[in-house]
Amino acid sequence: MHEKLRVHIEKIIPLSDEEFAFVLTHFISKKFKKHQFLIQEGEAVKYHYFVVSGLLKLAYTDDTEKQHIVSFAMEDWWESDFYAFYTQTEATMSLECLEDTQVLCLSLEDYKKLCDGLQKMERFFLEKANFGFLGSQRRIISWLTSNAKERYEQLLKQYPSLIQRVPKSLIAAYLGVSREALSRLSP
Amino acid sequence: MHEKLRVHIEKIIPLSDEEFAFVLTHFISKKFKKHQFLIQEGEAVKYHYFVVSGLLKLAYTDDTEKQHIVSFAMEDWWESDFYAFYTQTEATMSLECLEDTQVLCLSLEDYKKLCDGLQKMERFFLEKANFGFLGSQRRIISWLTSNAKERYEQLLKQYPSLIQRVPKSLIAAYLGVSREALSRLSP
Repeated sequence: MHEKLRVHIEKIIPLSDEEFAFVLTHFISKKFKKHQFLIQEGEAVKYHYFVVSGLLKLAYTDDTEKQHIVSFAMEDWWESDFYAFYTQTEATMSLECLEDTQVLCLSLEDYKKLCDGLQKMERFFLEKANFGFLGSQRRIISWLTSNAKERYEQLLKQYPSLIQRVPKSLIAAYLGVSREALSRLSP
Repeated sequence: MHEKLRVHIEKIIPLSDEEFAFVLTHFISKKFKKHQFLIQEGEAVKYHYFVVSGLLKLAYTDDTEKQHIVSFAMEDWWESDFYAFYTQTEATMSLECLEDTQVLCLSLEDYKKLCDGLQKMERFFLEKANFGFLGSQRRIISWLTSNAKERYEQLLKQYPSLIQRVPKSLIAAYLGVSREALSRLSP
């Protein structure tokens, strides 16, 4: 499973065996069962998670107890309540397993140590942060310019495997439409 | 005007006079008049811009020629069509002055040279990228959970001075509502 992290990092920066061994010392490996929570609203956010296998959902629950899906995270994705993680404040979102999930966990302290100890990891995280920002910007544009049907088609095109793995009710919560409206959209 | 950039960077990392002089060699200073374009759709995106003074709007025009505001940028903000900038592809958005504007321009080549030449600038850009990502994530949550009235109130609370400086029609295009709907929301 650690090899996955190496392949993932080496898409951006090359690592020697020694460097990768050093990288690994900063991560803790954990396994979770479907329906288990990695992050719960109101609690501390200890880790930034790299998904080795499985599927997670990051969700925000509003005052009326309605759940909104901020993002899904599959293999090779990084996920957390980033705001709470970076500012070391209480989680405003929850992170829950939709499948049995294996993750590598990086604490804020180890994240800083890793960047200090191996400068090129800072480059790696900068690339990931830039592309995370780009992804969010594209999703905002999609919200501004597209209706629910178009957003569904974009999701289908971008992440075809996600649609297979995620219940329709959660896809609807991600798109911001009702389950019934989604049924009319999807084939 | 260069002092503004220094103060801005030093909110995250300290710089010696020599280091700041080195940083500055990577930037070009430019002035634009109200209504001038820094980025036009379909053209190359040469720079990442640091706004010294003035106000910019980043906008996306859809197939029906309707304009959607992705973001505004005021003093101390960085702005660009980031996707086009980082991937060196054609702009899909436009960046236009809403006021006379002074910017410091950083090309992708100089951005890389700056990060290579002064490692701590990589840390600075990583922090900015992380917080840019957080900002986008919060806007997505706001879209998912709030109606137009609530989004208007959030904007008013977060950026009170923006509301004073930006025409109502553009605030409406940012919130994704009609000008008439916004009139009913705003006092």
